[in-house]
Amino acid sequence: MGWNQNSITAMLDIKYPIFQAPMAGGMTTPQLISGVSNSGGLGNMGAGYMSSDEIRNDIKRIRNLTDKPFGVNLFVPDSEASADAEEISSMEDVLAGYSSELGMKEKPSLPEKNYAALYRKQLDVLMEEQVPVCSFTFGIPESAIISELKKQGTIIIGTATNVKEAVEWEEAGADVIIAQGVEAGGHRGTFGSEESGLIGSMALIPQVADAVSCPVAAAGGIMDSRGIAAAMMLGAAGVQLGTAFLTCRESGAHSLYKHALLNAREDQTAVTKAFSGKLARGIRNRFMEEMKGLQTLPYPLQNDMTAPIRKQAAKLEQPEFMSLWAGQGVTLAEEVTVKELMIKLVMGTETLLDK
Amino acid sequence: MGWNQNSITAMLDIKYPIFQAPMAGGMTTPQLISGVSNSGGLGNMGAGYMSSDEIRNDIKRIRNLTDKPFGVNLFVPDSEASADAEEISSMEDVLAGYSSELGMKEKPSLPEKNYAALYRKQLDVLMEEQVPVCSFTFGIPESAIISELKKQGTIIIGTATNVKEAVEWEEAGADVIIAQGVEAGGHRGTFGSEESGLIGSMALIPQVADAVSCPVAAAGGIMDSRGIAAAMMLGAAGVQLGTAFLTCRESGAHSLYKHALLNAREDQTAVTKAFSGKLARGIRNRFMEEMKGLQTLPYPLQNDMTAPIRKQAAKLEQPEFMSLWAGQGVTLAEEVTVKELMIKLVMGTETLLDK
Repeated sequence: MGWNQNSITAMLDIKYPIFQAPMAGGMTTPQLISGVSNSGGLGNMGAGYMSSDEIRNDIKRIRNLTDKPFGVNLFVPDSEASADAEEISSMEDVLAGYSSELGMKEKPSLPEKNYAALYRKQLDVLMEEQVPVCSFTFGIPESAIISELKKQGTIIIGTATNVKEAVEWEEAGADVIIAQGVEAGGHRGTFGSEESGLIGSMALIPQVADAVSCPVAAAGGIMDSRGIAAAMMLGAAGVQLGTAFLTCRESGAHSLYKHALLNAREDQTAVTKAFSGKLARGIRNRFMEEMKGLQTLPYPLQNDMTAPIRKQAAKLEQPEFMSLWAGQGVTLAEEVTVKELMIKLVMGTETLLDK
Repeated sequence: MGWNQNSITAMLDIKYPIFQAPMAGGMTTPQLISGVSNSGGLGNMGAGYMSSDEIRNDIKRIRNLTDKPFGVNLFVPDSEASADAEEISSMEDVLAGYSSELGMKEKPSLPEKNYAALYRKQLDVLMEEQVPVCSFTFGIPESAIISELKKQGTIIIGTATNVKEAVEWEEAGADVIIAQGVEAGGHRGTFGSEESGLIGSMALIPQVADAVSCPVAAAGGIMDSRGIAAAMMLGAAGVQLGTAFLTCRESGAHSLYKHALLNAREDQTAVTKAFSGKLARGIRNRFMEEMKGLQTLPYPLQNDMTAPIRKQAAKLEQPEFMSLWAGQGVTLAEEVTVKELMIKLVMGTETLLDK
């Protein structure tokens, strides 16, 4: 069996076991997602921050662009996330310096949101639309939700950052498990203790592959066919790439963000909780450096409180205050179309593995 | 060309491009080193903390056990490492709690050492003994030293933890460069800023391979033939394994340390400066946890000051105060002989790559 005929390609009915990572925040446009799926991979919507209406709209647009499978990713909310008035006001004070520097009239504050209700509405859309693939980050949904999705034929993908999380996902019924190495850009999918989810792909993939019997897709540091071939050697049946797709013409990344990705060195990223309250890897900038060591609010509170600052920074073209998520393979990012990238990945992997 | 006939095997005159990592602190016994070299790999002495006499003795013992090439690793001293009286006395106070808990009569204090002179003496032995291979960690020696070693036929191996360090090593004349991923157990070889040297192998290897023209050996997270095959796919010409050799019968690791390695989970390691003043990865224990966030003395001062505590802890069988260096692939460690391990690595890699 070749590298592209395995448990993952068969289960998902795709040609190549290459997933485009579901990067939240407007990165995964219908053009990017459909482009990946039309090229034989699996495009994924980073829907964590999207409203149910936005998700429904994008699903319709994707279906106009492709008849191939695609996935939608949701963030599993933490029902215990909370902060007291003092912590909130202290973070408001810290962030006020940035909002005033960016000329914003309104001071940072915490919007009132019912996160559980938003999540339930997101799930309802996925049920109504019978999405082919649904992936989850930051936790494992209740078993009733997984059963419901599976009953309608949706494939479930879980994100794990260590062996324990992978085993829990398998027990919960995941069809595929993403093993996310510490090299990955953006949020750590960790739902155990923070320090338990920082394992490099070279070590993580074989240990997860040994521990579960469902197929594993490797994420973290994979940027080209060399990474794909390596992941396969380590025991993965598929791969997930994020940063490599961010610099595609079809991605929704801000032009400044793309510019930062195309010019960053591999040693310039770090993990930070400054933007969202959860660890995520991005290109170091002033905001990350200055927030170092400060106690953040828990996710998603910190995320909601910094959102207006990041939005204004993007508007004013000030990358020093934007979240520039990037993986450690960032120097390998190229300005290409999604089709060009997919062809390069597939042909390169074939050369390395099917010789 | 097969995986075991490349620039590294040709240059070093070895059968397989597999290095046993030069782990300092009495781990790399002549039995371990000669066992690796006799099995076709490259055994390496972790001589960083050894006196010139100890090194000379061990070289003689190795040469009695094998006629194959082997390497010796030195730590390049940082001439600027210093601490003022206040910092030293504050660390003495912190460590006094541990020494008293361990029933030690003498309080921790800083021995007077001339690190530059010790290093010079170590180098003199390597010249006198005309060692086949010399590797360096924590920096690049002066060019005169590299020239001298090369003139007598010694192969030079440099340790890099990012692209910049690799390029500097190539410019300095390294014959082989170790790309040490963040998964690696023990000390980070970083000689740039601390935060610049924490890149996962999956991302580090291809970026280093692209940046230099000399052969690259991958280290960090490689525990079995899957890791070796993956490293080769990523562009490495060889590999270096540490943790996998620590649990070999021939290694000098304390039985408690071996026990800890054979029972640790992959998510239980972390990097710490607590033991030596330089970042190193080990199994989290009480000493690491309690020292978190405290300012340590610079390397090697912190190392010398904690050494008696670690020694006493080993004597009293108290692993909570020992440095339990381990990589993130630790669950794959097995109790084997070095010959058994080498056969397994070679046969597995052949199956994966030469099918």
